[in-house]
Amino acid sequence: MQNLKDKVAAVFAASGEIAGAVARSFSQHGAKVYVTARNLDAVKTLAQEIKANGGSAEAAKVDALDEAGIDNFLRKVVADNGKLDVVFNGIGANYDEMGGRPPTTEATFAQFMAPLEKLCGSQFLTSRIAARYMMQTRSEGTILLLTAALSRSKLSNVAGITAASAAIEGLTRVMAAEWGGDGIKVICICPGALLETRRISGWINAAAQQYGMPVEQLVAQYKSLDILKTSPTLKQVGETAAFLASETGVAFNSHIVDVDCGKLNIL
Amino acid sequence: MQNLKDKVAAVFAASGEIAGAVARSFSQHGAKVYVTARNLDAVKTLAQEIKANGGSAEAAKVDALDEAGIDNFLRKVVADNGKLDVVFNGIGANYDEMGGRPPTTEATFAQFMAPLEKLCGSQFLTSRIAARYMMQTRSEGTILLLTAALSRSKLSNVAGITAASAAIEGLTRVMAAEWGGDGIKVICICPGALLETRRISGWINAAAQQYGMPVEQLVAQYKSLDILKTSPTLKQVGETAAFLASETGVAFNSHIVDVDCGKLNIL
Amino acid sequence: MQNLKDKVAAVFAASGEIAGAVARSFSQHGAKVYVTARNLDAVKTLAQEIKANGGSAEAAKVDALDEAGIDNFLRKVVADNGKLDVVFNGIGANYDEMGGRPPTTEATFAQFMAPLEKLCGSQFLTSRIAARYMMQTRSEGTILLLTAALSRSKLSNVAGITAASAAIEGLTRVMAAEWGGDGIKVICICPGALLETRRISGWINAAAQQYGMPVEQLVAQYKSLDILKTSPTLKQVGETAAFLASETGVAFNSHIVDVDCGKLNIL
Amino acid sequence: MQNLKDKVAAVFAASGEIAGAVARSFSQHGAKVYVTARNLDAVKTLAQEIKANGGSAEAAKVDALDEAGIDNFLRKVVADNGKLDVVFNGIGANYDEMGGRPPTTEATFAQFMAPLEKLCGSQFLTSRIAARYMMQTRSEGTILLLTAALSRSKLSNVAGITAASAAIEGLTRVMAAEWGGDGIKVICICPGALLETRRISGWINAAAQQYGMPVEQLVAQYKSLDILKTSPTLKQVGETAAFLASETGVAFNSHIVDVDCGKLNIL
Repeated sequence: MQNLKDKVAAVFAASGEIAGAVARSFSQHGAKVYVTARNLDAVKTLAQEIKANGGSAEAAKVDALDEAGIDNFLRKVVADNGKLDVVFNGIGANYDEMGGRPPTTEATFAQFMAPLEKLCGSQFLTSRIAARYMMQTRSEGTILLLTAALSRSKLSNVAGITAASAAIEGLTRVMAAEWGGDGIKVICICPGALLETRRISGWINAAAQQYGMPVEQLVAQYKSLDILKTSPTLKQVGETAAFLASETGVAFNSHIVDVDCGKLNIL
Repeated sequence: MQNLKDKVAAVFAASGEIAGAVARSFSQHGAKVYVTARNLDAVKTLAQEIKANGGSAEAAKVDALDEAGIDNFLRKVVADNGKLDVVFNGIGANYDEMGGRPPTTEATFAQFMAPLEKLCGSQFLTSRIAARYMMQTRSEGTILLLTAALSRSKLSNVAGITAASAAIEGLTRVMAAEWGGDGIKVICICPGALLETRRISGWINAAAQQYGMPVEQLVAQYKSLDILKTSPTLKQVGETAAFLASETGVAFNSHIVDVDCGKLNIL
Repeated sequence: MQNLKDKVAAVFAASGEIAGAVARSFSQHGAKVYVTARNLDAVKTLAQEIKANGGSAEAAKVDALDEAGIDNFLRKVVADNGKLDVVFNGIGANYDEMGGRPPTTEATFAQFMAPLEKLCGSQFLTSRIAARYMMQTRSEGTILLLTAALSRSKLSNVAGITAASAAIEGLTRVMAAEWGGDGIKVICICPGALLETRRISGWINAAAQQYGMPVEQLVAQYKSLDILKTSPTLKQVGETAAFLASETGVAFNSHIVDVDCGKLNIL
Repeated sequence: MQNLKDKVAAVFAASGEIAGAVARSFSQHGAKVYVTARNLDAVKTLAQEIKANGGSAEAAKVDALDEAGIDNFLRKVVADNGKLDVVFNGIGANYDEMGGRPPTTEATFAQFMAPLEKLCGSQFLTSRIAARYMMQTRSEGTILLLTAALSRSKLSNVAGITAASAAIEGLTRVMAAEWGGDGIKVICICPGALLETRRISGWINAAAQQYGMPVEQLVAQYKSLDILKTSPTLKQVGETAAFLASETGVAFNSHIVDVDCGKLNIL
């Protein structure tokens, strides 16, 4: 349980549930964790919880889309620690921000581009700034990105977020290829629908409203494709991230890692 | 050779070599072809060539990133013909527009997003506006997009265009899923490096300069992964597009179609 | 419609419906077609039909699992024609031959291996013997194999045929890599479930019996994943094969070509 | 480091280096490990080493291709322990057994089928017999298979082993789909070339002889595609297997898990 002993980890968009679970796992494996978000209160609470559980954590207000803000933050982290070992960016998007789930014929250009800019753009920013500091400090660290299996699905009314997911996976491969010479690992985590999160339950509720279906029916639909009749947990995503950032995790470098417990429709 | 007899086809960014080849093939298979670009002179010349060869063509000035312009143009096409059978958007990007091939640690946010907005954004616009008119006129047509196998590669210094290629492939699947109920086919063409084009020869020249390698060596490098020791031709891409838009081509609906003659490093 | 003018094509297992459709398309595109099967009467009837329609065809009794028989047959074809341009092997398997659809815990070793030996083994034999004669005669021909998307699915009670389908796709890539230097193209066709064939209707009937479901419900289930609410036709498979064997088809060398009209669950 | 505390694990073909590493990791994570092979002395030595390091191990003579032998062995394991939690089959093949690396045009039918029967056949046997005992004892265990990325490569003169690798991956998906309802996880490990193993160094030596190249050049060729300029280690494969068999590993159910540290030519 001490896979990340003495490691320095930075988590972006840590007010979200996935990033929160990842930060908790990083800490439980021994890392010092910097948790950041636009919402400082949320990450302060998270840092306190981690410390209350015996971990080492610091909260900072960082907007994962603000290049200068990310840079200032990471500069301070490496100034204080002399290195940067792990980065995870858990940025996500709600349908609200994307104008709901309009048919692609109705979505505006701005609605379509929004997830590409927010999700893929943020992953680009945090990854590359982290890589620079890892190179500077010869940290040979691990950069973990987040995507969704939409990238390989044929679902309706999700053009922007599907394009963004696919783009993040492509970006992962380029960055892994570029930075491997400096010993930097780049891995992308692709969780299946985490039914316990507010986002997925929000999606399900929104879809239930849109299609006039009972929520239970949609949940059952989601689970009908789950081979183990259970969806992955936040804990499993966090533990997988900690594993990927560990010494053994290097074996997964450059890959898209599905954390879905097996779904009938995802290869 | 009359797979597209009486079909009405619109080609965007037709001043480019790939789109030009596609337009020529569409015409040779019997389609009436509308060739459009920001550069009206270029597509006028193309239309004249097509007509000189016995085809039916019309040129129009359309910016494939201008939503209103695309809409006005396609509205006129369906007003004149009562239908829209085939759409191809050949939009591409030069390294110049993307700030050369900077390392991902150096690329600016704007440089990274540029191909996503231009390539993926344009494919989004032309596809969805075309789909609306196809639905309106019950045309049950075919929408052809363009991508590059970068989406599935691990190459350095091509973060933006790789992300854009992957995004276009994801977008293809969503649109195919959404519009299939209206009989609309959505297929994405993925040509291997077309050594005969100005773009690829430009890339090779740029890379030769950047890495200080002789052009012949880079050409040989490109071809070293070609199973048949030959790269695909513009003619083959055009003929494939015409086939995909034909009655049989429906069998390829929703897929990414590699037109690369087989490469050792592309699955 | 004369994509294969003056070409010499050999079709194995041509008593099957897919191979029959392929032979018909080859002929309609101008090829001289040798149709072979263990059941000589069946391919004689096919050859007569092709000739009645103005094509050129010859029937021969060949067991696509008998190495010497295949060799003798192809030796004669190249002796008579000086070349061999196209080969297609349509070998398939019925659940009967595989012991029904037993759960994998119940399937015997022999039942599991049967489709690997029959389907993958036969494709190996006809492809490599054809390749030898293509090399000998510098034919630079096209070898077309047949697989099923089971290779990329997660379906129950189909272990052997799934393993065989995946194996055939791997084999395709090795052979393409090996023989490309001799100008030989190797391409694998992967048709979606062809509801009009006896085999698929047989499968549906068998599954209906096994699970106690009405046939209509199973057909609807099959189609529920078809984006265009229609399954591909034998004609489309035949025309695609003819296209792949044509001058343009070289662009598809080494690939697995899905002919399924788009399915929600197949990437 | 106690991910597998109180777990009962059976390892087949444990005289091989990969299976040996997996058995060691299973033990280090707290599992009781049964190590089996045709060569009883080899696994006795392994068991002694594990016990000398404080682990719990038992050696048994089992031929991973002998259905009755596997059945008798696993019956005894569940009789003694009341359950079966983890199975790994490390069966491999040497070029010697496959007749060297003959061109596919020269390989005999038997040479081609050999790896399919041995590798894929053995994985089928151990997996399904294990699944039966897991079902009987409601063990909700994990079955780990072994493949090679040849399945997704285009390499020459490796038809049989490529087909076998692809077949094993297809088989993994079917078994995962079938047994998930019983809580059984099925996951396939795909290590990159492990340069430290006798098998890969043997392959490299054989290839060096065949092509008349210095060994160092071939090693450099192997590594030239390694993003991190290092190939994965046996230890990493073992630790990954232990992780996949752990509580968190369930998240990887049904997937092919690459353990290659990132290769430029493997997606």
